[in-house]
Amino acid sequence: MADFVVHTQTMARTCSIAGTLEVVGERWALLVVREVSLGVRRFAGIQAATGAPPAVLSARLRDLVAAGVLETRAYQEPGARSRLEYRLTDVGRSLQPVLTALKDWGDAHLCDERGVPVVTRHVDCGAAVHAELVCARGHVVGPRDLRAEVRIP
Amino acid sequence: MADFVVHTQTMARTCSIAGTLEVVGERWALLVVREVSLGVRRFAGIQAATGAPPAVLSARLRDLVAAGVLETRAYQEPGARSRLEYRLTDVGRSLQPVLTALKDWGDAHLCDERGVPVVTRHVDCGAAVHAELVCARGHVVGPRDLRAEVRIP
Repeated sequence: MADFVVHTQTMARTCSIAGTLEVVGERWALLVVREVSLGVRRFAGIQAATGAPPAVLSARLRDLVAAGVLETRAYQEPGARSRLEYRLTDVGRSLQPVLTALKDWGDAHLCDERGVPVVTRHVDCGAAVHAELVCARGHVVGPRDLRAEVRIP
Repeated sequence: MADFVVHTQTMARTCSIAGTLEVVGERWALLVVREVSLGVRRFAGIQAATGAPPAVLSARLRDLVAAGVLETRAYQEPGARSRLEYRLTDVGRSLQPVLTALKDWGDAHLCDERGVPVVTRHVDCGAAVHAELVCARGHVVGPRDLRAEVRIP
């Protein structure tokens, strides 16, 4: 067991937020993950839905495969050459709370009077799903009710 | 009440994820929000903790103030000119689930054998806090148990 101390402002820190942003912090990366999570698996579809420039999209897809977020599968339309389609790995699928938290914030602060453009629902019960801060004892936690503890090296 | 239909791949979409990324999708922006949320409020401290180039940091701080994520307050050290410090607005503080979800993913997939660098705890009970997908009926929802419904314009 490592020891932890309450975070103070003067500590240098190794940060998992920065690490995650190294992998998916480039804007198109998360939009690609969004599309693939919605079932859009082929280059042309992802390109059309995100609006990413093709060369940038190629690079992002390659990076996301290298990072283990996406995996490829070959497919072939009759008369065409073999191409790749993209699926989320379990590692990629576990980015869903990031996508939902981004969605929730945009829904709360950027929507016009027409309301939210997309509702995400729990398939079992149909209720709307949001990203909440929850502690290991099951309390829903407000953003002010947190303290950060840094591991002592 | 708007009507919603189950998302299909061929629909054009207006997306709150893309909207949020317009505001905080640039990598340094979220690292700045992280620092300010940890109580680091002054330019030099934010610069040291994030490693952002000063000119980039100035631009990001200006953008985040314009977007209503940060607000400024003047302060003055004896003998120095007046400067600004930065605080989260309520709008900015509501980005905490985004930060926590990014942290959780990095903790789960990027950490070495030394374990997670920072633990975030619920101040009331001390238990570790994570970003979870929760539906309005209180079920904790897995990333595969979602369906997206798009508003009919």
